[in-house]
Parts: sequence; structure tokens; C-alpha cells
Amino acid sequence: MSNVFGENIKISIFGESHGEAVGIIMDGVPAGLTLDMDFIKSEMKRRAPGQSPLATSRREKDEPHIISGILEGVTTGAPLCALIYNENVNSGDYNPDLLRPGHADFTAFHKFKGYANMRGSGYFSGRLTAPLVFAGALAKQILKEKDIYIEAKIISVYDKTEEAEIADVILETKAEGDSVGGIIECVATGIPKGLGSPFFGSCESVISSMLFSIPAVKGVEFGGGFGLAYLKGSEANDQMQVENGEIMHISNNNGGILGGITNGEPIVVRVAIKPTPSIAKEQKAVNIKEMTNVEISTGGRHDPCIVPRALPVIEAAMALCILDLERGKFEE
Amino acid sequence: MSNVFGENIKISIFGESHGEAVGIIMDGVPAGLTLDMDFIKSEMKRRAPGQSPLATSRREKDEPHIISGILEGVTTGAPLCALIYNENVNSGDYNPDLLRPGHADFTAFHKFKGYANMRGSGYFSGRLTAPLVFAGALAKQILKEKDIYIEAKIISVYDKTEEAEIADVILETKAEGDSVGGIIECVATGIPKGLGSPFFGSCESVISSMLFSIPAVKGVEFGGGFGLAYLKGSEANDQMQVENGEIMHISNNNGGILGGITNGEPIVVRVAIKPTPSIAKEQKAVNIKEMTNVEISTGGRHDPCIVPRALPVIEAAMALCILDLERGKFEE
Amino acid sequence: MSNVFGENIKISIFGESHGEAVGIIMDGVPAGLTLDMDFIKSEMKRRAPGQSPLATSRREKDEPHIISGILEGVTTGAPLCALIYNENVNSGDYNPDLLRPGHADFTAFHKFKGYANMRGSGYFSGRLTAPLVFAGALAKQILKEKDIYIEAKIISVYDKTEEAEIADVILETKAEGDSVGGIIECVATGIPKGLGSPFFGSCESVISSMLFSIPAVKGVEFGGGFGLAYLKGSEANDQMQVENGEIMHISNNNGGILGGITNGEPIVVRVAIKPTPSIAKEQKAVNIKEMTNVEISTGGRHDPCIVPRALPVIEAAMALCILDLERGKFEE
Amino acid sequence: MSNVFGENIKISIFGESHGEAVGIIMDGVPAGLTLDMDFIKSEMKRRAPGQSPLATSRREKDEPHIISGILEGVTTGAPLCALIYNENVNSGDYNPDLLRPGHADFTAFHKFKGYANMRGSGYFSGRLTAPLVFAGALAKQILKEKDIYIEAKIISVYDKTEEAEIADVILETKAEGDSVGGIIECVATGIPKGLGSPFFGSCESVISSMLFSIPAVKGVEFGGGFGLAYLKGSEANDQMQVENGEIMHISNNNGGILGGITNGEPIVVRVAIKPTPSIAKEQKAVNIKEMTNVEISTGGRHDPCIVPRALPVIEAAMALCILDLERGKFEE
Repeated sequence: MSNVFGENIKISIFGESHGEAVGIIMDGVPAGLTLDMDFIKSEMKRRAPGQSPLATSRREKDEPHIISGILEGVTTGAPLCALIYNENVNSGDYNPDLLRPGHADFTAFHKFKGYANMRGSGYFSGRLTAPLVFAGALAKQILKEKDIYIEAKIISVYDKTEEAEIADVILETKAEGDSVGGIIECVATGIPKGLGSPFFGSCESVISSMLFSIPAVKGVEFGGGFGLAYLKGSEANDQMQVENGEIMHISNNNGGILGGITNGEPIVVRVAIKPTPSIAKEQKAVNIKEMTNVEISTGGRHDPCIVPRALPVIEAAMALCILDLERGKFEE
Repeated sequence: MSNVFGENIKISIFGESHGEAVGIIMDGVPAGLTLDMDFIKSEMKRRAPGQSPLATSRREKDEPHIISGILEGVTTGAPLCALIYNENVNSGDYNPDLLRPGHADFTAFHKFKGYANMRGSGYFSGRLTAPLVFAGALAKQILKEKDIYIEAKIISVYDKTEEAEIADVILETKAEGDSVGGIIECVATGIPKGLGSPFFGSCESVISSMLFSIPAVKGVEFGGGFGLAYLKGSEANDQMQVENGEIMHISNNNGGILGGITNGEPIVVRVAIKPTPSIAKEQKAVNIKEMTNVEISTGGRHDPCIVPRALPVIEAAMALCILDLERGKFEE
Repeated sequence: MSNVFGENIKISIFGESHGEAVGIIMDGVPAGLTLDMDFIKSEMKRRAPGQSPLATSRREKDEPHIISGILEGVTTGAPLCALIYNENVNSGDYNPDLLRPGHADFTAFHKFKGYANMRGSGYFSGRLTAPLVFAGALAKQILKEKDIYIEAKIISVYDKTEEAEIADVILETKAEGDSVGGIIECVATGIPKGLGSPFFGSCESVISSMLFSIPAVKGVEFGGGFGLAYLKGSEANDQMQVENGEIMHISNNNGGILGGITNGEPIVVRVAIKPTPSIAKEQKAVNIKEMTNVEISTGGRHDPCIVPRALPVIEAAMALCILDLERGKFEE
Repeated sequence: MSNVFGENIKISIFGESHGEAVGIIMDGVPAGLTLDMDFIKSEMKRRAPGQSPLATSRREKDEPHIISGILEGVTTGAPLCALIYNENVNSGDYNPDLLRPGHADFTAFHKFKGYANMRGSGYFSGRLTAPLVFAGALAKQILKEKDIYIEAKIISVYDKTEEAEIADVILETKAEGDSVGGIIECVATGIPKGLGSPFFGSCESVISSMLFSIPAVKGVEFGGGFGLAYLKGSEANDQMQVENGEIMHISNNNGGILGGITNGEPIVVRVAIKPTPSIAKEQKAVNIKEMTNVEISTGGRHDPCIVPRALPVIEAAMALCILDLERGKFEE
């Protein structure tokens, strides 16, 4: 099963790309919070499609419509449900029998016995990250009051690392009818010491579990990550010293987490995003109804590179995890 | 909280490195299974310490003692509890006030307010993977009946990739009083199509959550992983074709998982293992009682490289995840 | 936390009595089910208000609006979200400072620090059972295909047990400005043997947990229930005999459940419903803002007895539990 | 599945009546607690068998052996595992083919396909409540520091309510080769306002779920319980008034819980315990191997009435629930 995450802040997402709406329920939001709707809308706008030549041309306002859990703009403590209506839906060119490479068409077909609604990728669509960004904005607002901040940046897109180059490679790739992915780094600062648990409740377990639920994420590493496999212990260990009466770490190769628990250093995580599977170039695919080989070019409106729009999504995922971990910290 | 994992096979681990025993409870093991104790013991021996110059000299037989859940060698369906006694414990050189770099000493101190038992790293020790290997062996036995097989191999240790070179680099590093890590790849074959769920219940979420609970794991990637960030969509997509009446994938860049759900291809996951934090070389550390800077050389018995002994642990983690996912598959 | 129930069919409810809508998400509904909307609507009508002099005069159509999880009337396997809009809301006479006796006003005030939306009892309202009945109808449809049927009946209202008398006592009590409760019995037939688990996963645990979540339920008993405390073992035990090659139970004092697991006999559960707390008679209450004693008569539109409308709710709760237990049954 | 309970204090039980040991894991016990072993042992002694002519003659010391989670008598924050060895086991007269009326033999046979270990009722035995009492004692110790106290008393056994009469009716029934049950009331005082949640996380849901997991419990009611069905709203409502600047409830018909949340009044719950199913009197039963009708008299050592020994078990269950709810209360 798929749609519930969290222990202390539980979120459930629902909706389909070409359905009436996508949405989310958040349970465990503290009562008495005046929602900063301007901030929430600005976060959602960062993710919304149709705003740049680097992104899909599907235009959606992506304004959340809150059904429950607030009264006059203030949270009540009851489950908060928000809908984001789909306004610019176009399923005209959709053929449910064609299984597109790199998409969930084939796996959804098997899991749901042919009944999955895959128009615009349905429940598997990146559009389901819109409610995640809504919830993440709310989480960020709560974390900000505790001086916890989260920020993601692009490390690379294809073979490019500079901002101007990145825009170029995306546009060039789009012109080729192809797509690219990239690497995002997300850093959370102001983290209290002692969040998370050893073993199955480790911070890395919680955060990676959420990050890998985001479509297109295929790798997650903390701190030095895969690079640590090429260091010696004497280089990789984060040595400590007392400074001004406090214990400081000299480096942060563990990305703020040791034994599954935060050490007060920034949490640093990097995420690999695969290239968007929908491309104009012809690819070998299958018509499952007729069991025939076909060549398909995925028309429709697609992002040549999802990395820029993924930034607020990764931040939202991180914010929700840290809020969940933070609220799981017992005061005794 | 930390010690429960799984929805359909629930496991709970407990124990400390220098306590009486480490152990595990498994709930949801099917009744009527005749345990293959020879196989279980052989798996545990793969992980057990004291068997090679590449590993710690602590000697433990690591034979599981089953307390409940079996009758005359056959599972009863009741929760199965197994203990692995600690026999070769030596806490003589342990000073609880010294926080060792790269270990959980500092974070455990904060989380458990100075009360954590960190002798031999206590509950944070790699020794807690012994019961995981026990449970994994049992999971493997069940999966084998379904023709599902799991195998891990070393990709690299430090900068070496060949078996003979790997032994050399470990012994050289040991002689330097230092340690190394490496990369392990684990492949599961015979996977049914349709395991896992979109979003929060994705196969990647479940598997990464478990893998990141293993001490020293700092990165997890599926299929092409981070490498996919350097491909174009036309290269990364796993194109399909019909062969002998079946749909086949031409490549497996997604590591057997699309939209969080298995596509029948092998599940391929790679894991980054950091260098063992305990090294003989002097390092900057802190005495937390006196709040003074100290230089410490971690004496005691330690692995100069945990990668070889981690192979059965990674396999066990994978087996438990796949069994959990497999038992979550509804037949209708 | 409050809004998620179930392991194999997960439901989450949300909304407030005087908000825009109440609603539910169901995750785990099998794909390929053609919803019987006539049946669903007829079930919801059984619970809907405003249909009888025995019930509140608030009129609501209570037609579910499905947001996600179906395509052309057929379930897709994705989470199913349904809203039931509130149309006949009247918060005019509501004073948030008055804590009404027998309601959740006082406890909600403490839990949610004065921020709870208690108009019409908000999230605590019996109106939240509308989405439960929607989900229950869907569960019933699935169970019917497995020949499992669920039916609740009124055992008593106040001191009356006959249908005609019951109507009389409700109307008389209403005339007095007072209210009454009663006892409902629910029976599920066609139950497979072997559902549920010993201890914490017992059928009684699962079912009681759900039933006690329904507002106004203050007692739950299975089979002989409290009456078993007045029998001897020789009378209470359900003796067995072989009939036509099958093992039959001679009695059903255990209400179809032994050791937490179903024995194939009907599941029999009885539920105590307290009198509706909202009454016209004056009662001692408190104005929490001014911390003064007041006498209040709860005007507004209220049921003098909720028992008749609770029948479909109890059935829905039972159907959801049995479906959850049934889908948790492994086939090996 | 069956063996895990709790969100903030998770407990898992295991073991069989005639196996090596029964035991429990507790995760979430706060670090730094010096266990009051005298209190723990005294609680376990209240439940232990073999101490009175009113109870079974099986003699067990029932002293807990703690495997993990403490260091020199103080909790470390790691999962605490305790074993209680079975010393006085006698399976001599056990025939696995005979299904005893009132026991779980028939249901376990179906659930576990004939592989369940039912010697002494195995995992279904009341003996599994020994680890529950251990955990409950620990919970009581923690709650006592917060001035929360829990006490259960016998309301009735069969038709007797006075202590002396109760002893008589048990001994008379034992002489007849029969058994009796009864009703227990448990009261928790010092409860903070605001524990629990509306709907699925209601205090009644949590507590009933735990209580119904105890073998022989067939009914649970809170406050006025089933009696509320015979009152009018004006009698049942707990009216309020301000006294000395605090809001007081004039009555406690809701048993300290409204809308699923505690109101600060004592939590009052009553539990129906069925008569012990094992009796010397001959009863109709079945030999499932031969599918023949038999008459059986359950020899062995059994309690003619489990009610007196159930008192500490009910208290333990209650203590664990309240501790779990209490630790789930967020401070903001």
C-alpha cells in the first residue's frame, strides 16, 4: 500500500494527473497555526508547470483548496485536507494499450490487472508531488519557528554544473526530442541533536523512504555518500573538538547523522534524478492488447528535464521527514 | 523508534554488543516450514567475526538459539524468537566518557541523555546484524521455494575491484592502523511482476529504508542509480519488445522497479559502505565528562574493512524486504 | 492521532460538521470493481438526516462525490477519495465559549488549545460517520461477492424492545426535550475460518477499536459478552460435534471468535449507544471564556435518539473490519 | 498479525505455555529509569500461578530475566527484552488431535494449518500475560512519577460480589469440576486532560483493543457503559460547573473520556471475563484427525476461575495504554 507516510505527522496523497484533482490529508498538524498562504502559494508556484521554456507547457494554477482542518485561516488540529484541481487536462492523444518505456505503464498493468488509470500517468504522475509541496510548505512554516531551514540546489544536469550551462543543455536536449536528469543536493540546517533512532527508525531510513517515493529518484546518499567508499577511516571520520564550551565536528562526512541519529550538523542528502521518460525520439515499445512491437514517440506536453521543478519537491519531502522526526522527540 | 520493520513479516531486533545476547522476533512466518538449520548456520557463519585476518579477532560462534515459534524444527505460525549469545565479550578497555569519531557515541549521548550502553557500541553495533542474518536466512529459504534468489557481491573496496587486490588493500590498511569501506551490489532474481506500490510504499522506499538501517551504509542506488543523471532519456529508458509471446525489457536501467513496482527484471541495488570508524591511528576526540580535547586510538578488536562481512547482511536485508513485499501481494 | 484505520484496506476520514465537506480516502480497494452506486446511495440514505420525525431536521442529500480512484465507474487500484458536501449548515446559534455537557467541547478545548472548530461538533460530529457508511457500502459490496453478509438490528431503546414501542419512546422523549440511547446487535455471516490473530491482532481488538471510534459508543461485547460472567464453563463453552463430515459448534457464546480468530460461526457483537448529549432541557454547563456557571438548553437540530441512524454506521464499521481482516489472510 | 502493540511504547510478546520461555520486547522506554525490581516482582507474583487453592497448581516463579536494554539496573533507551522461563511444564497428557471446547484449538488449527503448538494452549495461553504484567509494572513505575495510578478490583464472580462469597463460589465450582468467570473494574486516576484523539485513535479504541487481546475477555465498557442505554440524556450527561476556579464534572458517566479524549476524570472501564474453558466435567468435543465425536474432561492443572489472577493483567494492559497515550501527547 502506498498512500500514508509518517508517524507523528501522517500524510496521505490521492488523485490522478488527468482526474478532477490531486490532494492530500495531513493529520497531526498542531492547532493554532495561522497558515502563511502567500508562502504556500509561492512554494507551489516553484513546482507548478507551464512557467518556463525548460518545463512542460501544461499550465496549472496549482492553488490549494483547503476542505478541512482550518477555521478562518488557523489550523484546528483536525485532519487538514487540501485539493489541487486539475484544470488543463488533455487526454486526447492517450492510448491505454501502448506501454511507454521508462514509465510505470507495464508495472501498473500487472499490479492493477489492467484497470489502472494511466492517462497522464494517473496516480504515478509527478503531478502527485503538488500536494506534497503544499504539505511541505506547511511543514517548513512550522520548522522555521524552530529555526530549522531546508534548501535544495542543483548539483548537475547531465554533464553541466553551471546555471547558465544547465539551461542550455536542457533546451538543446529538448530540441533533440530527448531528455536529461541530474543531481540535487538538499541541506537542512538548525537540526536539533538526537532526532531519529538506531536501526529501522534511522534518519536515513525515514528520509530515503520518502525521497525514493518521488517519481524519477533512483539514488540517495548522505554526507560523503558513495564517495566515502573511496576514503580511509582517518579521512572519513568526523573528528570532534571542544570550542567555546561546545562539542564541534571538524567535518560533516556523515551528513549530520550518526547511528541513525542527528548530531546537530546540517543534514546533507543528494538525490539522483533520472531523465524524464517521455521523449519525442522514437523508442521500442509494446502494444499490450495486440502484443505487438511498436515504435513510439511520446507526444503530449512533457518536461525535457524535471530537475528544476524537483527542487521544491525534494525540499518538501525533507521538511515533512524532519518535522515527523522532530515531533517524535520526547521531552522528559 | 527503531526496532520494528515490515508489514507482512514484522521483525524486531534487540540486544547489545557486550550484553548477554542479541536477538530477533519474527512475526508472520508461515506455519509448517521445516527450518533448514544447516543453511541458517552457514549464512550466519558468513557474517560471524573471528574467521579471517581481514576481520576482527573477536570470536563468536553465532549459533541461534530459538526460544519460540517452532515445534520439533517446524514453524508453528506463532512469533519466532531467536537469541544469539555473546560469548567473547571484552569491555575492559572501554571508557564511556570518550566520544569516538565516526561512531554513534555523541548522538546516543544526546538521544539517551548519557544512559546509553555504548560498550562495544551497544545497540548501535554491527553485531545487531547477526539476528538480521538469521532472519534473512529464513526469508531466503521461503523465497527459494518461489524461485527467488538473492546474491550480493563486492564491487570495490577503497580503490580496488579485484578479489586479490581487495584482500591486499585491506591488510595494508590494517597495517597502517586505518580502515577502508567499499561498494556492494545486490541482485534479486525471479522477482514476480507487480510487487510494491506507487509512492510511499515503493519498492525503493521499502528496500532503502531497511538498507539505511544497517550501520555504515551511507548511499543506496537502484539500477543505473547516480549514473542515470549522466544519461539522456533515450539511453536511460528500458525499451521493451515482445519475444516469444512475452514482453521483455531490452535493458534494466531502472533496476527492476518502475513507479515503485517490480517489472519482473532483477532488482539491482548498490550500497556504499563507509570505512570502519574504529582505527588505531590517533584522532581528535572529546572527553564529554571533562569537556576536554583528547587524541584517541581506538584499540580493541575491529574490522579494518566491514565490506566482506556485510555481504550476507545486505542479502538478508534484501530478502526480508522482498518477502515482506511478496506477502503483501493480494491474490484476488 | 486519529484519522487512519486498517492494515490491508486503509481508510482516512476528514472534514467537519459545518465545514465544506466531510470525506474519506480508501487505500487498498481492489482494482476492477464496478461500484454499485445505487447500493452505495441507498446505504447512505439509511444514515442521512432529515428523513424522519425520529431524527434531526437537518436535511442533507449525502451523495458521495468521488474525486479519485475510479475510471468510468470502475476502481483503478489507486486511492479512492470521496467527498460528501455539507449543504444544510446553520452555525448561527453557536457560541464557542459554552462547553456543552456530554460533548467533546471540554476535551477538544484542552487537546487543541482552544483552536478546535466545534461548530456542529466539528470533526467530533456524528456527521463524520457519513464517509464511513460510504466506505462500508463499498466493503459490503466486496464482501457480498465472498458471501459474507452483515446486518445490524436494534435490541433496545431506553426500556423498549419492540419496534412500535421504540418509535413511541423516542417521540415522547423528544417532547420532553430529552434524549435516549440503546443497544444494537450486529451479526456477520459467511465468515471464513481463520481470520484474525492471537493477542493484539485479535478480531475483537480490531472490531472494538473501530466501534469505539464511533461517537456515542460506550460498550462493546462479543457473543455472550457480559452475560458470560454469569455462566459456568460447562454452559459457556461452545461444544463441538461432527455433522455430515464437518465440525459444528453447538452454541455460539464466543460470538464466532476464539483465541482472537474466527471459527466460521457468525460474528456477533453488541454495542451500547449513549443518549444524544444535545437536549433541550436545561443543564449545568460552563462558559470557559468567562469561567462562569451557566444553564444551557441545546437548541439547534438534533436527534432525540441516534440509534436508528446508527444501524448502517455499525454495519459499515463491521464491514470495514472484516474486509481488512479478510484481506490480511495469507494464501499459501 | 498479532504481536506488536503501541505507537510510542511498542511492545511485542512471544513464547508458548510449554516452550522454553515467554517474553516481551519493549521499545520506547525512556532512558535513565532505575527499575524497581521489587515492585516488578511483586506485580508478577500477583499474577503467578500455584499460590492459592483458587488457582491452578502449576507452580512458576515467574521472575523476569532481562536480556537487553538495561545497564546496572538502569534503562539505556535501547529495546528492553525480558524472558520468563517456563519451569513447571507438563505436556504428558496432551493430545493434539482433540479440539477442546472454548479454547483456540479449532481456530488455531485452521489459521496455522495444523502446525500450531497448542500444548498448554501454546501462544494462546493466559501464560502470555506474564510478560504483559512485567511490562505493565514498568509502565506503572513511569506513570507513578506523573501521579497516575491504576487499580483494578473484582465487581463480581458468577453471582457473587463479596470477597468471602467469591472465594466460596470458586471453590464450590472447582469441586463440581466446573469453572466461573466474572467482571473486573479498572480505574485510572491522575489522568491528564487531552490524551487520545477523535475517531480511530480514541482512548476507548486504544484501551479496548488491548483489553480484548487478553484471553477470556468478551466485553468492555467505559463509564456507565451498557447501563447508559437505559438512561435519558439529562441523566447520562456529565454536567459541569466551576469550582475554585476549575471546571469540574458533576458525574463521570463517560468514564473520563469524551470524543475519544480524556477529560481529567478517572478513566473507568469494566471487563467481562468468561469462565475458564478447561473443566473436568465431560463435554462434547471432536477428534480432528479421526473426525469423530468424543467426550472430554480437561484434566491437567487449571484455574477454576481466572478472575483474581486477571486483576494485575487488566491493570498492566491499562497502564501500557495510558503510557502510550501519554507519550503521544505533544508539548508545543
